[in-house]
Amino acid sequence: MKPQRFALTPGEPAGIGPDLCLLLATQAQPHPLIAITSRDLLAERAALLGVAVTLLPVSLAALPDQPAPAGSLYVWDTPLQSPVVAGQLDKANAAFVLQTLTRAGQGCLDGHFAGMITAPVHKGVINESGIAFSGHTEFLADLTGTAQVVMMLATRGLRVALVTTHLPLRDVADAITSERLERVTRILHADLQHKFGIANPRILVCGLNPHAGEGGHLGHEEIDTIEPTLARLRSEGMDLRGPLPADTLFTPKYLEHCDAVLAMYHDQGLPVLKYKGFGAAVNVTLGLPIIRTSVDHGTALDLAGSGKVDTGSLQVALETAYQMAETRK
Amino acid sequence: MKPQRFALTPGEPAGIGPDLCLLLATQAQPHPLIAITSRDLLAERAALLGVAVTLLPVSLAALPDQPAPAGSLYVWDTPLQSPVVAGQLDKANAAFVLQTLTRAGQGCLDGHFAGMITAPVHKGVINESGIAFSGHTEFLADLTGTAQVVMMLATRGLRVALVTTHLPLRDVADAITSERLERVTRILHADLQHKFGIANPRILVCGLNPHAGEGGHLGHEEIDTIEPTLARLRSEGMDLRGPLPADTLFTPKYLEHCDAVLAMYHDQGLPVLKYKGFGAAVNVTLGLPIIRTSVDHGTALDLAGSGKVDTGSLQVALETAYQMAETRK
Repeated sequence: MKPQRFALTPGEPAGIGPDLCLLLATQAQPHPLIAITSRDLLAERAALLGVAVTLLPVSLAALPDQPAPAGSLYVWDTPLQSPVVAGQLDKANAAFVLQTLTRAGQGCLDGHFAGMITAPVHKGVINESGIAFSGHTEFLADLTGTAQVVMMLATRGLRVALVTTHLPLRDVADAITSERLERVTRILHADLQHKFGIANPRILVCGLNPHAGEGGHLGHEEIDTIEPTLARLRSEGMDLRGPLPADTLFTPKYLEHCDAVLAMYHDQGLPVLKYKGFGAAVNVTLGLPIIRTSVDHGTALDLAGSGKVDTGSLQVALETAYQMAETRK
Repeated sequence: MKPQRFALTPGEPAGIGPDLCLLLATQAQPHPLIAITSRDLLAERAALLGVAVTLLPVSLAALPDQPAPAGSLYVWDTPLQSPVVAGQLDKANAAFVLQTLTRAGQGCLDGHFAGMITAPVHKGVINESGIAFSGHTEFLADLTGTAQVVMMLATRGLRVALVTTHLPLRDVADAITSERLERVTRILHADLQHKFGIANPRILVCGLNPHAGEGGHLGHEEIDTIEPTLARLRSEGMDLRGPLPADTLFTPKYLEHCDAVLAMYHDQGLPVLKYKGFGAAVNVTLGLPIIRTSVDHGTALDLAGSGKVDTGSLQVALETAYQMAETRK
């Protein structure tokens, strides 16, 4: 296994992102991992936490090819606009946050990094600064010129991708069009093949309605939209099962023999995933030309600098990015 | 603990209900349990399964006060209209199925039984026979003159009740009215107190939208309907938490300190419940003047007579009914 370089963005500087990166650096990584953030911020946060981490400065012109030793962290210094107080948002640093994402994303596009792993940003404070921002995913889609991305959450033993994501529940049924379902299924299928190394992925597809519509008694979207779309894609050779009732699909009988579940909407798929993977779930953006994984939690401003944080999700985000890079075709 | 009598209805005679009752009878029960079904049916199915169970005839005039010994089962003989072939539906027996339910339900109302436990019926074949039937729950609501019931699924360590049940997803948002939410919450709260013996139940309430609406960015039902309704009920002393995002609520931090979760709709609450409680989940009908629990699976016609059935859900249904009867106020 040849070491490959990865970019790590700590996200909102007043949140727990810097803490997680420092705590993680106490252990050695199998690949060179470069934190893209302010060196001063990390030094101050390390002092606050009482964690001894040696910060090793790097730059785009001099990127390392070997992992840093345990207790040290490579840092591509990216200056803050304003000093950071742990737990206190400051819109003056919004542009800084976006610069770290741009450096990581562009670095992936340019081949400097095999992938990027992101800690949480705070959407609200970026928007308050006057910069329109609806999230990491959309930002990276724009940066890489990608029209459609798919949100997938994963934990050890389960992957759940979503056809619709952050929509009011009353808008979900109309959003499940044949076009959207086909587009999302194609991206999921292709990325399972090319970024996860699964030759012929088996995907379980949820129905939209309870009991997957129960033959039309509880809704017609399965008959009118989902079944014909899946049938068309199956005829190309895709192994798609369903539409299945969501409350029976998430049981060992089905899950043991699948590579991913495709849920129609947010609260149909994610409660089980987060129940199963509590503290160890990762958000993967499919459809991008680069590898990007993320923690599945927020900035937890109240915990910044406290040391009371769990690196579980970030560890799984790193593992997942490493595995994807190793199996990528 | 004084033994109390319970009624057990095997449901659809061609399905796995009779098999489950027979397999269960190989072990002793702590209470007298009376199967309300055809004696001939049980004898034939026992022969098919190769299970030795002594059938002990009882009648309404002579009901037992002590549990049957292991390897035997009390039977209140209720004649079939037509001989049964395992796995083959026959609409001639629809009235028989309903008679078993009437005997059990009326027996509960009359004080002969402390509660009833139901194996699955087949709605389709009952309707084909010309009898309008939308399920156990509605049938028992009619029989007992109950205007509103609430569906709750439970497994060891988790209870999930639903504000809406078998509705197409596109109709859910409009069905979440303040009136309905209040009615369902009151029934859930009262039954947790009176049928489960919990003095001051804590209920976690899901939002309707992803992230519980995220302050109105992802839907307004939380702000317009759910929050004001919960606030009003809280002012009466109910311990109601939420509305909470469904994908963070189902995690140990929240679940360890609650007595039930109230989900807004079927696929928001039941996938986690069935994932956690696979093969050992029970359906409890709240709001009835009687105790009624049920298995959470279907008739599994293809497995009838095969011996390849799991009594896990029926065992939890029995345990739950026993516990409810013991703690009932």
